[in-house]
Amino acid sequence: MARHVYLCPLRWADMDVYGVINNVVFLRLLEEARVDFISRLGAIGGDAFFRDGSVVVRHEIEYKRPLVHRLEPVKIEMWVSSLQAATVAIDYEVKDGDKICALASTTMAPYNYEKRFPRRLTDAEITFFQQYLEARRAIS
Amino acid sequence: MARHVYLCPLRWADMDVYGVINNVVFLRLLEEARVDFISRLGAIGGDAFFRDGSVVVRHEIEYKRPLVHRLEPVKIEMWVSSLQAATVAIDYEVKDGDKICALASTTMAPYNYEKRFPRRLTDAEITFFQQYLEARRAIS
Amino acid sequence: MARHVYLCPLRWADMDVYGVINNVVFLRLLEEARVDFISRLGAIGGDAFFRDGSVVVRHEIEYKRPLVHRLEPVKIEMWVSSLQAATVAIDYEVKDGDKICALASTTMAPYNYEKRFPRRLTDAEITFFQQYLEARRAIS
Amino acid sequence: MARHVYLCPLRWADMDVYGVINNVVFLRLLEEARVDFISRLGAIGGDAFFRDGSVVVRHEIEYKRPLVHRLEPVKIEMWVSSLQAATVAIDYEVKDGDKICALASTTMAPYNYEKRFPRRLTDAEITFFQQYLEARRAIS
Repeated sequence: MARHVYLCPLRWADMDVYGVINNVVFLRLLEEARVDFISRLGAIGGDAFFRDGSVVVRHEIEYKRPLVHRLEPVKIEMWVSSLQAATVAIDYEVKDGDKICALASTTMAPYNYEKRFPRRLTDAEITFFQQYLEARRAIS
Repeated sequence: MARHVYLCPLRWADMDVYGVINNVVFLRLLEEARVDFISRLGAIGGDAFFRDGSVVVRHEIEYKRPLVHRLEPVKIEMWVSSLQAATVAIDYEVKDGDKICALASTTMAPYNYEKRFPRRLTDAEITFFQQYLEARRAIS
Repeated sequence: MARHVYLCPLRWADMDVYGVINNVVFLRLLEEARVDFISRLGAIGGDAFFRDGSVVVRHEIEYKRPLVHRLEPVKIEMWVSSLQAATVAIDYEVKDGDKICALASTTMAPYNYEKRFPRRLTDAEITFFQQYLEARRAIS
Repeated sequence: MARHVYLCPLRWADMDVYGVINNVVFLRLLEEARVDFISRLGAIGGDAFFRDGSVVVRHEIEYKRPLVHRLEPVKIEMWVSSLQAATVAIDYEVKDGDKICALASTTMAPYNYEKRFPRRLTDAEITFFQQYLEARRAIS
């Protein structure tokens, strides 16, 4: 089993008035990580899971440690914690070096935007996601 | 027991490329709802819970229905679902008329920014939050 | 001649690390003011200038005074400073009470998104904008 | 004379409902370019121009061509177009390959945040900026 690692560039404006990366911005960073992750699927199978084919059903995030702005990217490790006929859950660790700043999980549902209707995962999608399957990390 | 109701103005830029209010933006709207809620505490007790005194520990959000941009504000109902010595959890319903677009919950911890140290809730804070105590709405 | 006045709600997250409304966010507020302004055109003439019919060609903004976050909306006054066959320029004053925080100007060009082609202003659009025509305020 | 080149990562959320990088977001990208540029000054002279020492006085931007989201960074070329005792103007070209998507200019004033007072450029700042001095590119 493998994790997908995304080195996520921060922006100066990601800081809030307290001088740390704002808690909502973390979700933006996770979105970037997903785009990077899912773009691999596109490269492999010609599938357009992210672009025209999924909706976010649920987010869960737990903040462990403040993240300070830096010019270097922050590391986001991701894996698949649940894979079902019509949903896939992606878990993340946002890391500052070895220290975990946040744990999170996003559940997505494949979706046909044209027909505005949920759909099932395709075989190519399942094969792709299975490579990243790992137990769910306990979020309190 | 009472809920706090906040009428949250949307912005055109809250829409993403799919033409609906972006999933991450919902967290921004909840932030606005909290600022409005907590400002009452300031008005009553002279406390500065939000401004210099709390950190977000955790968010959980479940999307039920797409939210379309409109010039009129969207309704966010909030209440306190858990109140402990050093944390308070606020639950929300984001509503489009009578329909629920999202359910969410945020756990916050009072924090002394000057000393950079967690602190306990003050009596004034506890008294304020107790008025809004309500059972947690089940989020799947 | 009249100005259009928009009372623009601020958000807590509009503040940057310096504790004032961030300079880039001002452009977001102007966008909201334009949406509000243009929505009148829709109400009157059935035209969809903003939604499917214009692009921003140019912005110019000059910051005069820091804008502090407050729960009350900030006032944005707007008028039309130039009206031509294929462009319209809107000028703004962002005000904190009587004090001007920023002066700005946006040039827009009507645009046919379906055909991906610039278009001329319609008669209804010209009639609408002419009501707000006023000399350009000097921006240094 | 040299230009500073910054390769600016885009984010998926930089797209607006029209599927292109939003006009306001361009200003965010320019901010990132400035942070990168000014960080060189910090590295050289120990100066903290950006972090605790300047305010944006003015922005001007002209959009030439839509910018489409891509996983690769977009190129921002910058130079100093005006250098005075108490202001510095930075001009930019935002490029998609060889094509210019936007031309812009930002005027900044050094500022002492602690004393809340404008200040003059230091000798180290002047020496740094002089290396990037180039005639202003005409923005219409």
